[in-house]
Amino acid sequence: MDRIETYRQIIQSLLTEYASVPISNGQIDCHTVFDIQQDHYQVMNVGWDGYRRVHGCILHLAIRNGKVWVEHNMTEMLVA
Amino acid sequence: MDRIETYRQIIQSLLTEYASVPISNGQIDCHTVFDIQQDHYQVMNVGWDGYRRVHGCILHLAIRNGKVWVEHNMTEMLVA
Repeated sequence: MDRIETYRQIIQSLLTEYASVPISNGQIDCHTVFDIQQDHYQVMNVGWDGYRRVHGCILHLAIRNGKVWVEHNMTEMLVA
Repeated sequence: MDRIETYRQIIQSLLTEYASVPISNGQIDCHTVFDIQQDHYQVMNVGWDGYRRVHGCILHLAIRNGKVWVEHNMTEMLVA
């Protein structure tokens, strides 16, 4: 398996595991979005917390020029 | 072509066209993220506007239970 394909497998495995932890408040779904053609990999929080709409990208990794880019990382933010 | 497959083609065509319009300010890339397995389709703005980091989901459509869901739509927001 070539290096980029290994990156793809590792990223998808990690993000799937991260997204599998249920969210305690509201009716919020944590799910992955994997675009394997364009090499974008995201974890999204989408749903409702009471009357408040929740739609946020928690983590966004990309593979570009043979490297893994962290485009966005909210995994260590403590926001309500 | 079945109905869901038609939805997939239409959504990808529309979002690709939307994302092809270049962004005038900063070094911001507008790109699509298509997860055809899980049926999530997004337009993202990612980059830098001077020293300010830009990372936003502009449009997020999903296909669920045979229907197209608009999860997020910022296409008519006028924000700097």
